[in-house]
Amino acid sequence: MKKALKIATIGGGSSYTPELIEGFINRYDALPISELWLVDVEEGREKLEIVGALAKRMVEKAGLPIEVHLTMDREAALKDADFVTTQFRVGRLEARMLDESIPLKYDVIGQETNGPGGLFKGLRTIPVILDICRDIERLCPDAWLVNFTNPAGMVTEAVLRYSNITKVVGLCNGPIGIQKGIAKELDVDMSRIYVEFAGLNHMVFAKNVYLDGKNVTPTVMEKMTKNADGISLKNIADIGWDPLFLNTLGMVPIGYLRYYYQTSTMLAEQKEAAAKEGTRAEVVKRVEAELFELYKDVDLAEKPKQLEQRGGAYYSEAACNLIHSIYNDTRDIQTVNTRNNGAIIGIDPDSAVEVNCVITSQGPIPLTTGPLPLAVNGLVQSIKTFERLAAEAAVTGDYNTALLAMTVNPLVPSDKVAHQILDELLEAHKQYLPQFNN
Amino acid sequence: MKKALKIATIGGGSSYTPELIEGFINRYDALPISELWLVDVEEGREKLEIVGALAKRMVEKAGLPIEVHLTMDREAALKDADFVTTQFRVGRLEARMLDESIPLKYDVIGQETNGPGGLFKGLRTIPVILDICRDIERLCPDAWLVNFTNPAGMVTEAVLRYSNITKVVGLCNGPIGIQKGIAKELDVDMSRIYVEFAGLNHMVFAKNVYLDGKNVTPTVMEKMTKNADGISLKNIADIGWDPLFLNTLGMVPIGYLRYYYQTSTMLAEQKEAAAKEGTRAEVVKRVEAELFELYKDVDLAEKPKQLEQRGGAYYSEAACNLIHSIYNDTRDIQTVNTRNNGAIIGIDPDSAVEVNCVITSQGPIPLTTGPLPLAVNGLVQSIKTFERLAAEAAVTGDYNTALLAMTVNPLVPSDKVAHQILDELLEAHKQYLPQFNN
Amino acid sequence: MKKALKIATIGGGSSYTPELIEGFINRYDALPISELWLVDVEEGREKLEIVGALAKRMVEKAGLPIEVHLTMDREAALKDADFVTTQFRVGRLEARMLDESIPLKYDVIGQETNGPGGLFKGLRTIPVILDICRDIERLCPDAWLVNFTNPAGMVTEAVLRYSNITKVVGLCNGPIGIQKGIAKELDVDMSRIYVEFAGLNHMVFAKNVYLDGKNVTPTVMEKMTKNADGISLKNIADIGWDPLFLNTLGMVPIGYLRYYYQTSTMLAEQKEAAAKEGTRAEVVKRVEAELFELYKDVDLAEKPKQLEQRGGAYYSEAACNLIHSIYNDTRDIQTVNTRNNGAIIGIDPDSAVEVNCVITSQGPIPLTTGPLPLAVNGLVQSIKTFERLAAEAAVTGDYNTALLAMTVNPLVPSDKVAHQILDELLEAHKQYLPQFNN
Amino acid sequence: MKKALKIATIGGGSSYTPELIEGFINRYDALPISELWLVDVEEGREKLEIVGALAKRMVEKAGLPIEVHLTMDREAALKDADFVTTQFRVGRLEARMLDESIPLKYDVIGQETNGPGGLFKGLRTIPVILDICRDIERLCPDAWLVNFTNPAGMVTEAVLRYSNITKVVGLCNGPIGIQKGIAKELDVDMSRIYVEFAGLNHMVFAKNVYLDGKNVTPTVMEKMTKNADGISLKNIADIGWDPLFLNTLGMVPIGYLRYYYQTSTMLAEQKEAAAKEGTRAEVVKRVEAELFELYKDVDLAEKPKQLEQRGGAYYSEAACNLIHSIYNDTRDIQTVNTRNNGAIIGIDPDSAVEVNCVITSQGPIPLTTGPLPLAVNGLVQSIKTFERLAAEAAVTGDYNTALLAMTVNPLVPSDKVAHQILDELLEAHKQYLPQFNN
Repeated sequence: MKKALKIATIGGGSSYTPELIEGFINRYDALPISELWLVDVEEGREKLEIVGALAKRMVEKAGLPIEVHLTMDREAALKDADFVTTQFRVGRLEARMLDESIPLKYDVIGQETNGPGGLFKGLRTIPVILDICRDIERLCPDAWLVNFTNPAGMVTEAVLRYSNITKVVGLCNGPIGIQKGIAKELDVDMSRIYVEFAGLNHMVFAKNVYLDGKNVTPTVMEKMTKNADGISLKNIADIGWDPLFLNTLGMVPIGYLRYYYQTSTMLAEQKEAAAKEGTRAEVVKRVEAELFELYKDVDLAEKPKQLEQRGGAYYSEAACNLIHSIYNDTRDIQTVNTRNNGAIIGIDPDSAVEVNCVITSQGPIPLTTGPLPLAVNGLVQSIKTFERLAAEAAVTGDYNTALLAMTVNPLVPSDKVAHQILDELLEAHKQYLPQFNN
Repeated sequence: MKKALKIATIGGGSSYTPELIEGFINRYDALPISELWLVDVEEGREKLEIVGALAKRMVEKAGLPIEVHLTMDREAALKDADFVTTQFRVGRLEARMLDESIPLKYDVIGQETNGPGGLFKGLRTIPVILDICRDIERLCPDAWLVNFTNPAGMVTEAVLRYSNITKVVGLCNGPIGIQKGIAKELDVDMSRIYVEFAGLNHMVFAKNVYLDGKNVTPTVMEKMTKNADGISLKNIADIGWDPLFLNTLGMVPIGYLRYYYQTSTMLAEQKEAAAKEGTRAEVVKRVEAELFELYKDVDLAEKPKQLEQRGGAYYSEAACNLIHSIYNDTRDIQTVNTRNNGAIIGIDPDSAVEVNCVITSQGPIPLTTGPLPLAVNGLVQSIKTFERLAAEAAVTGDYNTALLAMTVNPLVPSDKVAHQILDELLEAHKQYLPQFNN
Repeated sequence: MKKALKIATIGGGSSYTPELIEGFINRYDALPISELWLVDVEEGREKLEIVGALAKRMVEKAGLPIEVHLTMDREAALKDADFVTTQFRVGRLEARMLDESIPLKYDVIGQETNGPGGLFKGLRTIPVILDICRDIERLCPDAWLVNFTNPAGMVTEAVLRYSNITKVVGLCNGPIGIQKGIAKELDVDMSRIYVEFAGLNHMVFAKNVYLDGKNVTPTVMEKMTKNADGISLKNIADIGWDPLFLNTLGMVPIGYLRYYYQTSTMLAEQKEAAAKEGTRAEVVKRVEAELFELYKDVDLAEKPKQLEQRGGAYYSEAACNLIHSIYNDTRDIQTVNTRNNGAIIGIDPDSAVEVNCVITSQGPIPLTTGPLPLAVNGLVQSIKTFERLAAEAAVTGDYNTALLAMTVNPLVPSDKVAHQILDELLEAHKQYLPQFNN
Repeated sequence: MKKALKIATIGGGSSYTPELIEGFINRYDALPISELWLVDVEEGREKLEIVGALAKRMVEKAGLPIEVHLTMDREAALKDADFVTTQFRVGRLEARMLDESIPLKYDVIGQETNGPGGLFKGLRTIPVILDICRDIERLCPDAWLVNFTNPAGMVTEAVLRYSNITKVVGLCNGPIGIQKGIAKELDVDMSRIYVEFAGLNHMVFAKNVYLDGKNVTPTVMEKMTKNADGISLKNIADIGWDPLFLNTLGMVPIGYLRYYYQTSTMLAEQKEAAAKEGTRAEVVKRVEAELFELYKDVDLAEKPKQLEQRGGAYYSEAACNLIHSIYNDTRDIQTVNTRNNGAIIGIDPDSAVEVNCVITSQGPIPLTTGPLPLAVNGLVQSIKTFERLAAEAAVTGDYNTALLAMTVNPLVPSDKVAHQILDELLEAHKQYLPQFNN
């Protein structure tokens, strides 16, 4: 008989937590969690208490013997945990707002996982993640680190290169969304299709789609160019694709690729939206405020429908499925961020990639997918370059490396602009970047 | 609803066929075969009729609506087939006897899938397989070719490089045997272990063993060095391993590796056995004669126990599992011969390797396993060199290429000996090697 | 004794020709050319006659027995040639003007070897080069093709992938210029330094600089950031580099990299210059008009000083040195465009790269330089992707491939803009793009 | 003006030293050595004094201001040296005798750089070389280590992987010999041919031969199969090659490859020779005794002709040319052992290989040579595996790693024989293998 399961969720005060709780409750038979520790930092205490109380009500209503602990003591939470999930946000939505708005001043995409914003989210997050890794080594060396904190690819890269933790998986809800979207386009059940993903986090492509064993990619591309509604993401403006371009590309790109293939259009859209309704962070902030109002309702004991507006569709599905599959050695296929190890030929075997993996009790094993199609190889290599430089800068706090990362990012138009945005963001985020303040 | 299944088995008169029939009968619910065509050549007519009659009795006894056809007409058998399995032997056991005995005269290992014998089995088999491939293209282009004919690695390599067929899988019962042996050594159920295989056909290594997600390879190696009975193969002399060597190697090698790591000992053993009871072909011939006597019994309607002595344990399991998994898109993990595509870093992505794959309805997808351990990389590369040269020689009928293949084989001690064995085997097998007779 | 040398120069009417003539004259002792055929097309007849007459006067003045032939008959020129040099411009400066000005309308860099302009120069040039290759196969199969026509990297890639010619070298005067600039910065003789170049044509980096065997790259970078005058190119605005960026990069980039690392700044500069003095093509056109006036002077029998303003400094040096080294098997080191073959780890061995080579009588042999530094790997891979797609589009005339090439170019900000520029340039250049007009 | 040169030669008492002295004397104008330190260990004092005295007489006769120092004090010799050459033999010819004779008892090739003997020469030598490397770091960090001590490939591999020294070159006289042999076969001057070498030390192939820029490899192979006298080595029995095999191989193999391609024949030859005249070590010992008798002659002031019988033809040429080329930055091409860095595709870029290099003042830069021909890839990978395991065993003193190295060597026929030879050689050499005696 398997031992009782302990899960520690860092950033437990997140508005997403009810998603996770619901997922755990639904899978309880196969995933008999005995302890769930929601951890947060002092400045997130209030949110933790609100969402934690809701979590307890949900568990109670489900009639399950899951102990829900709320704590500011990370060590207690990690002690002997089996899985550590991370969903924290260093600097909260205020920091995101800066990541999104400052680049816009320089006519550069402002986004929390791409471009200058993505770089700074990485610079703030990576030192914290590596600190958690050191705690894991000490307190729960056999635990799996399931990271949802963005930029998930850069964070996974940093853990693989700069920590001793090998049991790490980076998660994104994007691939599940694409898969569901494709199934919807084809009007078939998800179980009948197989989607071969290859790329990096937020830079992934559905390279091939099979229906009942037949390659139907051309059909999918044709449908996609007519109607891509099924596959858009809540947090990315759905401005459509040039149909000819999409057809020639021959693969379904994740929505984030709009930032690269439609840079000027997206920039214009961002500026307009910012003027109208504020940056995405501001929108999210309003949504979150409403959510927390709902969460406070002591009669609420289930995930409110409104949470689905938040943008994290399938978040719970991705995280709970992964944990379930590792725990039960289900050996099903999921798309996660992990060490490449040859899955994508042409990318360093030691780098993090986002590919299909068999999920076993010893972790994800990547499936081979061969070289990237020529047309996207250059861009993917550019972003991998960027991620590695960013991770290095986050660890060393070296100004020059950060400048290099910023300059080589394809969304940044010149070394001078890079210099300016870097300086402004370093100043703006200074309290969360101690490594740069020596 | 899925369409009715048609299977064509080339070399249907093999003594192994009852294994296959039993496997199909047991899996009928999930694998509703409507037609099974057993094909053979004129010189195998008698055996086909005997084993075919038994097959019909077995199906009848099971009360299943599977039509069993016996034919010498390959085209009729292939027409619209869903799966083509190949288990034929060009030149029958007489040819094998030559492959096993002629090298011995030169103090060289005589074996049907390794060394000079393996080369010649390849030279005889590959042109026939490529001919079948051309038929498949024409008659059943969507069919899967499931090859069991040895040398399975070399044959798969030849199909990948010299035919237009991409839906090909090479099968061997070895990995299943090792897995079962390891489970037995650990005294646990198969489902609790995961064995990471990497290498080539008949040159495969169990690189890592996991039990409930924990790497237990050192424990397995320790047990193996004490008692390797569980993992020996019927057709290879079980002369044990040097325990220190095995421990240092750190992986479970398939039994065939004895030919390479214990060459002189195996040679002595072969010579002694040949003197005492004849070559393995002669032993098998006697076993087969007895089997066919049994098969003739019109009251027999099941696989006789004695077949297990024949050496092909798990043959049915390997073939039926694969067909079942492709047909039903089960996405379970099996160890098969397929295009590398990066699974083993350092081996040509276009070459055939034997690795763990997820079996889907679009075929096997190799799981990454990284580079081969340094200690075995050289040997594996040598055999891949040999296989590629052998496949080239089989296709071109070029004497010099055959000489090169023979000379670079690690079991052949010199260019002069290579030259002599080559000439004697070319002469001995001349009727089955038309490509060399121009 | 070596046989007499025949050289065919395609695009012989170029204003650069006197450079070449001077180079040949100066090296006559080691490079005893007996026949020099200047070839051009009908629309370039006038220029050919002017510059050809000057060439004859120069040879005569030097008192050398070089026959100078002027012809519109390419076949006669190629027949039994030993070296074929190409320096033609399909569509002349008028086409360049369009390449430079149309993208500017869309706020995209307008340049003849980078971005949309570079793509179209490739689309016009590659079919002609491949036609010349077919002639070479037929008329002078042992000849070396020494290509100076831009975009030289894309053209070399196309010849390597789409012709049967293997004796091809792509040349650029950039690396010599950088080397001279570095020697000047260090205030030492060129012979004392060794500069390790790696990259692609117009995307090359001086990775390491050695002085008397010692790595002095940091010293060079320090000097460069203070004063990069020595290394600017005539045809690229010398807007300086961000010193911090350059230092962090740690390599001397060729001037063209300003388009990528200083995109917005360069764009602004281009627009200002275009408004003030027209595009670079227009400037060059005026310079050329003046040059041809000079060339007409029947008393002129040497290269006029004004030619140096034209932008092709060291052009003669690069071409003549290469021919001289092949002819005389000098085995000296030059930086040329050739098949990678492992020189840069991580780039397809079959692709064209710009690296240091030993020049032997059997051609250039690339020197290993290892992987590209991480920081530039992404960009270089992006441009290689672009070059390969561009070459494919040039050969196939496939609109979609051209669109893909345009869109993935890092200088193009969106698929929509790509679409628009593509259509406008296809229309503008239609007479030179028959492959797109089916 | 360049500074005065100091050279330290470790193993200065070698009978080869007069070769080196002659080479230095002949090149004095270009290589103005001011100090030459011949170092040896106490047990070699007598030979050092004899050969040192001859060296002094040679220098004096040449009238050159080279100070020759004889010393047992390695530190004094290394202090501020510019080049350190190593030609020592741990355990002297007595140890070699054991390396050559013990394997023969087990019917295994006994040879000082291949098979078990090569392994043990490596195990004895590598710790001493690494000790010298540590001294170099401390006493002359800018010096070049020019290693002639065999097995030169394994030693170079060990220095690259287990020391901080990067300025190391491994030398062998074999490639020069092959080049001279080919020139002789073609009856042309050496300067007109270019031989492309690729492989490992004592496992190198002349892949392509060019004469005046034309590939003449087929012609060379044809001549070679008729008459290979020109290319045999003094220390390897010249038993010829199977002409068909050589032609099919299509490359000139270094003589040592006879051990691999003609194993049984060479073994028989070795046993016969050992019975007749003793092992090669014993022959050499007699030759050396005679040489030292000659060296003692106080009237002798030049290299005696008899030294040429010793087997090290071109030794002086290889070493002096290399030092001369580095010192003078001649940038000529020589074949040396160095870090691969992509020169041979498919071999670890960090491993030592034997390839053509341009020799510059910053050291050798390998020329790309692409992948090894398929036919030899397996064998070369096997020997690289062996070399790496051997180097690891030499450094760690781990018995199991040594056993693994021994077993995977292609000349060793089984794990049991490996075990036995290993134990006997470990015992026999125990005084020189302190790392195994803990």
